[in-house]
Amino acid sequence: MRRRIKLVLSYDGTPFQGWQRQTRTEATIQGELERVLSRIYDCPITVIGSGRTDSGTHAVAQVAHFDAPKIIPTEPKLIRALNGLLPESVVVKSVSLAPPDFHAMFSVTRKTYIYRVWNHPVRSALWHLRAHWVQKPLNLELLNDFSSLLVGEHDFKSFQTTGTPVPSTVRTIEHARWQAKHKYLLEFSICGDGFLKQMVRNIVGAQLYLERNGGTPADFQSIVEAKDRRKAKDTAPAHGLYLYRVEYPRELDNKCLKL
Amino acid sequence: MRRRIKLVLSYDGTPFQGWQRQTRTEATIQGELERVLSRIYDCPITVIGSGRTDSGTHAVAQVAHFDAPKIIPTEPKLIRALNGLLPESVVVKSVSLAPPDFHAMFSVTRKTYIYRVWNHPVRSALWHLRAHWVQKPLNLELLNDFSSLLVGEHDFKSFQTTGTPVPSTVRTIEHARWQAKHKYLLEFSICGDGFLKQMVRNIVGAQLYLERNGGTPADFQSIVEAKDRRKAKDTAPAHGLYLYRVEYPRELDNKCLKL
Repeated sequence: MRRRIKLVLSYDGTPFQGWQRQTRTEATIQGELERVLSRIYDCPITVIGSGRTDSGTHAVAQVAHFDAPKIIPTEPKLIRALNGLLPESVVVKSVSLAPPDFHAMFSVTRKTYIYRVWNHPVRSALWHLRAHWVQKPLNLELLNDFSSLLVGEHDFKSFQTTGTPVPSTVRTIEHARWQAKHKYLLEFSICGDGFLKQMVRNIVGAQLYLERNGGTPADFQSIVEAKDRRKAKDTAPAHGLYLYRVEYPRELDNKCLKL
Repeated sequence: MRRRIKLVLSYDGTPFQGWQRQTRTEATIQGELERVLSRIYDCPITVIGSGRTDSGTHAVAQVAHFDAPKIIPTEPKLIRALNGLLPESVVVKSVSLAPPDFHAMFSVTRKTYIYRVWNHPVRSALWHLRAHWVQKPLNLELLNDFSSLLVGEHDFKSFQTTGTPVPSTVRTIEHARWQAKHKYLLEFSICGDGFLKQMVRNIVGAQLYLERNGGTPADFQSIVEAKDRRKAKDTAPAHGLYLYRVEYPRELDNKCLKL
């Protein structure tokens, strides 16, 4: 009697070598979750995430699932048991019993990321592992002109770091915009139906590169249209990135039962 | 030819055993600054802070001074030299040439602290070293009723952790109030002409204790009036506290020259 369990979790990516379990001994978020769940269920458990996050990247709300091999007496308090055993830099925000056809990765309909920039001549001691430091004042209006060109259905091959091949590099972006959260903290928010490998870091890297070097919206447009990774310069560092939200079809959400 | 230099600095208190230099090998903010300045000036330099902060306590803007024994060629770029040599968790935000009668500790006219509380049933992975976690929803109105009793001139002996004796335990508080920065992040802000040892942590600790145990504003008032440390329960943890601002007389500020 397999029970599919959905987890929503948040983490500070700083102490981890990314999401994905490693064969070696480095700490990863998937690895920590599997270690703790295997201990709770007293048998090996595999956790599937909505996607990988890079080493140093944070999550406000990552989603994962696993198949519980049995009902355990502590199931209603699974969230407490998990949070009691996980390191302080990872937290499970909610635990639900999901329908068997729910899949943390394949059922995703929409993801939102944010990218934070500390934009000040002097580095920040309080943001140094949570935002990318850019010394020169950024032109937010220009960055938003670049970003508006991302909205809609496009082939984002120019922003894909090569790795595992994917059937298509076409994605639909619903919104992409920069705003100042306060005077020196800028935030780029992007929402779409899916993201290629390091796509957000590559988009931010290309935008910051163009901004710094007098690029125009037409230059950004031609990078998008080139469908060529070599045209987009720079990959913004991982520690500015946060996986902010992962969404699923309403009919699946409605069948999830909070534990 | 002694030149008094004023520094404004920010730090993430997590990796440090507080502000004050230790005889042993633990890292402290004062110790790091002195190590780096002594290297830059090639002779031992002593740094005076506006006050000590506890192990784990952060600073948005701490102030310190030191006496430079000579003019060095890099003086106009002192801020860069310092920030290049200091650990990432400490940053010098500004460097000024101060008048000889400026003293980082004795010239202070006003200090502001903030205390952050993560108020949610589940702990936070992103705030865990930056805010104190309180599970049950806090009554902000009641906390503000307590806080309004702090405003004005009072003997704050009930909130003084014993240590170095001070001539007087009377201080004047200009404002003290709680507000929700967002749904689950509460912030207590307090500004006054001076603070006793661990006074903010003891005030927050006593308020949270009373809130949790059905205390009334009259109960808080009687703690203040008791002038007895034993009447105030609990000391809120250090990692929720931020030294936010240190102010000096305008006539001294006017004589400070940014380097």
